Amino acid sequence: MERKRIYLVGLGPGGREQMTQQAYAALADADVLCGYTGYVDLVRGWFPEKETYTTPMTQELARCRWALETAREGKSVAMLCSGDAGVYGMAGPLLQLTEGGEEVEITVVPGVTAALSGAAMLGAPLMHDFCVISLSDLLTPWDQIAKRLVCAAEGDSVIVLYNPGSKRRRGHLRRACEILLERKHPETVCGWVRNVGREGSEVRILSLQALKETEVDMFTTVFIGSSTTQRIGRWMVTPRGYENK
Amino acid sequence: MERKRIYLVGLGPGGREQMTQQAYAALADADVLCGYTGYVDLVRGWFPEKETYTTPMTQELARCRWALETAREGKSVAMLCSGDAGVYGMAGPLLQLTEGGEEVEITVVPGVTAALSGAAMLGAPLMHDFCVISLSDLLTPWDQIAKRLVCAAEGDSVIVLYNPGSKRRRGHLRRACEILLERKHPETVCGWVRNVGREGSEVRILSLQALKETEVDMFTTVFIGSSTTQRIGRWMVTPRGYENK
Repeated sequence: MERKRIYLVGLGPGGREQMTQQAYAALADADVLCGYTGYVDLVRGWFPEKETYTTPMTQELARCRWALETAREGKSVAMLCSGDAGVYGMAGPLLQLTEGGEEVEITVVPGVTAALSGAAMLGAPLMHDFCVISLSDLLTPWDQIAKRLVCAAEGDSVIVLYNPGSKRRRGHLRRACEILLERKHPETVCGWVRNVGREGSEVRILSLQALKETEVDMFTTVFIGSSTTQRIGRWMVTPRGYENK
Repeated sequence: MERKRIYLVGLGPGGREQMTQQAYAALADADVLCGYTGYVDLVRGWFPEKETYTTPMTQELARCRWALETAREGKSVAMLCSGDAGVYGMAGPLLQLTEGGEEVEITVVPGVTAALSGAAMLGAPLMHDFCVISLSDLLTPWDQIAKRLVCAAEGDSVIVLYNPGSKRRRGHLRRACEILLERKHPETVCGWVRNVGREGSEVRILSLQALKETEVDMFTTVFIGSSTTQRIGRWMVTPRGYENK
């Protein structure tokens, strides 16, 4: 097989059983496993003989450049992403760096992103239209994030928040909830999920009002219901409307 | 293991290699495989001995009722969904029917939904915030769909359209594009993907203007770029902003 290739691999939430077989096969085929240290550590044990290349969380572009150079030299590289490789992952910056050149064969291997793995733990919050919004303002101005929150609320879509908080982003979730509370009922059914598919995973269903007072970290994904989202027992469910047929 | 259980299983786009190991294990564990005929046919060959229960596409509620009754009688049932079980899938109606009762143990097993599997074929259209909207007006009034299209355009999110067309829904994609063209540039980079992970899969990148003139079927997923989405060689990419750091 042609070795000048890069697999952009979505690992899903973290466990082997939550990866697709295609993702595992890509890791197995690669000469080098490359990624943020924490993600490489997740899979290193399955392939103890393989070369690895890790960089810290903020070195995304350097990592992509390294992968492209290494593939051009004739190796096959798997770039590891948590969740899906194309949702706030490495697929974008890597493809931008190729500038459309085709000397390296690139395959994006999708995975179960946090919106899906988190929703599965909460029940069925995403049964109807939804918006995915990252609260990280490292790469996006806060004004644009705020505008998207307003639009999502006005469309009455379910909203999934990625990167709702971190040590550097304290207060972002509170600010987001304040924007939403101007347009949505304080009792809107919301939920959060932490550490999906890893040890110590947690799930909570609560009101938008209560969500505003919640401290979250970077391993948390937040779900904000539409006006029709309900709490049914221990589940968060957005009806699609079968019951009205 | 307790047999009074239901697995809601997201199969991903269709092939064995695109399922998670957890999804395969749920099918293997179940006494009965239950679902729309087309989905059960995808997996029947792997488990030739297993009991199956199939219903046509429009019998979702009847299927859920049957699954719940069968599980209450002491069997374990896997309900099959294409893509993810919680994105326009069976998780919602099934959990609604339980009314919060816990006599049957329910596990939602997430899968790679069409937004992710389609995005992977196009490149990286979902690298920044996005909205998922179904154009099916069987269960949702068209006015609400139109409103969500307007809001998604005003927030300048990438938009993923599920159910963009069918024999009964001719013209829906054209109407959606007309709404978007009032708010977005006609050269906005768009893409569509058909039959992901199955034989005869197709991918196309085109302008919003050209998308308006396109006929699509129910096996197609449509991607509409934000104002920053680019065509880079054969890829559709929405930059996240690493290059501005």
